[in-house]
Amino acid sequence: MLVYGKNVLMDMDSKKIRKVYLSDHLHSGEIFTYLKEKGIHYFLCPKSRLDKMVVGNHQGVVLEIDDYNYYSLDSIENEDFIVALDHIEDVHNFGAIIRTCEAAGVKSILVPKDRSVRINEVVMKTSAGALDRVRVVLVSNLCEALKKLQKQNYFVYSSFMDGEDYKTLDFSGKKILVIGNEGKGISKVVEAITDVRVGIPMSGSVNSLNASVAAGILIFAMK
Amino acid sequence: MLVYGKNVLMDMDSKKIRKVYLSDHLHSGEIFTYLKEKGIHYFLCPKSRLDKMVVGNHQGVVLEIDDYNYYSLDSIENEDFIVALDHIEDVHNFGAIIRTCEAAGVKSILVPKDRSVRINEVVMKTSAGALDRVRVVLVSNLCEALKKLQKQNYFVYSSFMDGEDYKTLDFSGKKILVIGNEGKGISKVVEAITDVRVGIPMSGSVNSLNASVAAGILIFAMK
Repeated sequence: MLVYGKNVLMDMDSKKIRKVYLSDHLHSGEIFTYLKEKGIHYFLCPKSRLDKMVVGNHQGVVLEIDDYNYYSLDSIENEDFIVALDHIEDVHNFGAIIRTCEAAGVKSILVPKDRSVRINEVVMKTSAGALDRVRVVLVSNLCEALKKLQKQNYFVYSSFMDGEDYKTLDFSGKKILVIGNEGKGISKVVEAITDVRVGIPMSGSVNSLNASVAAGILIFAMK
Repeated sequence: MLVYGKNVLMDMDSKKIRKVYLSDHLHSGEIFTYLKEKGIHYFLCPKSRLDKMVVGNHQGVVLEIDDYNYYSLDSIENEDFIVALDHIEDVHNFGAIIRTCEAAGVKSILVPKDRSVRINEVVMKTSAGALDRVRVVLVSNLCEALKKLQKQNYFVYSSFMDGEDYKTLDFSGKKILVIGNEGKGISKVVEAITDVRVGIPMSGSVNSLNASVAAGILIFAMK
């Protein structure tokens, strides 16, 4: 969704902002300082392009924001099982995982702010209403969030092709399951703080499952 | 039939490939080496021509392949675990289930001839090469086929929302898992000959899983 204006930018919850488009004629030190402080991505473009994006006096500032109100890490309370997505990119996978979490009784899903899928119309549609009953928690840094939860006695299980057979593991206690990116898998930084690498042994030679199917198998095994 | 994508080319049984169309902007030494090694004919053409041939992200690679040769019921030999699809309609679900079967070592998938998804470009793409290693068996009447297999000591497990908890069942012996239609579930005729109704207990209130996710959970639990 696109909104605009200098005050709208300054007043908007920065977690909801995906991108900011600024007119290349904008002279406002205050705005640039604010964007850098908050780590918000911005793009300079001709005023004529902003004129085409929105109808109204945009003052050289157009924001692309989320419609969904993401939750913060503090919203997690007394939950035994959390799912985290390490840069999932496909909207259908995201929607199916939200639906699976709801069916399995998982209350919170952690997603990183950058290079990750966001909630849009397709995710809303694919998740088939489950989004009302599962909290999507947006974190600036997934690794830091996981470390913080480890201090609260959560055990971090990350999914790897060659991880330990999930059928042989004991999943009692407070736990987080991390699902990796469709192509690249779990990131190096998350791997480094992982407590257990968990895997689904496969007999075939294609050797990969759709990310939402793999997530479904692990989520239902761990719950 | 036209299919597309780099991985589809590399994973496809080369005997099935008639021709390959490559974008003249494609830079991939690996692909050209592979095509020469295998003696596969290829044609360079403008990307715009590929865009007209197929709808989807072709990655500069379109293949003309033989249409799929469906297998018959007689092709099933000494298999412990078969999957049957009771009128699945969604091509993405079908592709993901083929991929899951391959990963789980299931060799044959039964599909009914009428009112069911068929193998097309999207199924090929979604199944990511798994179709070369899994037999899709086309039957005129799914119920009759299942009855025939029951006479060969196969046990028929059909998936129901309110079926018995899969975690409490013993799946030893020769077995068939039947996955129902996305909306209507298992058909009345198949329900009537089912040996065990198997289910995935759910905690949520949306109470449904994507069909390919549900299939994945059951297939990996039963294998």
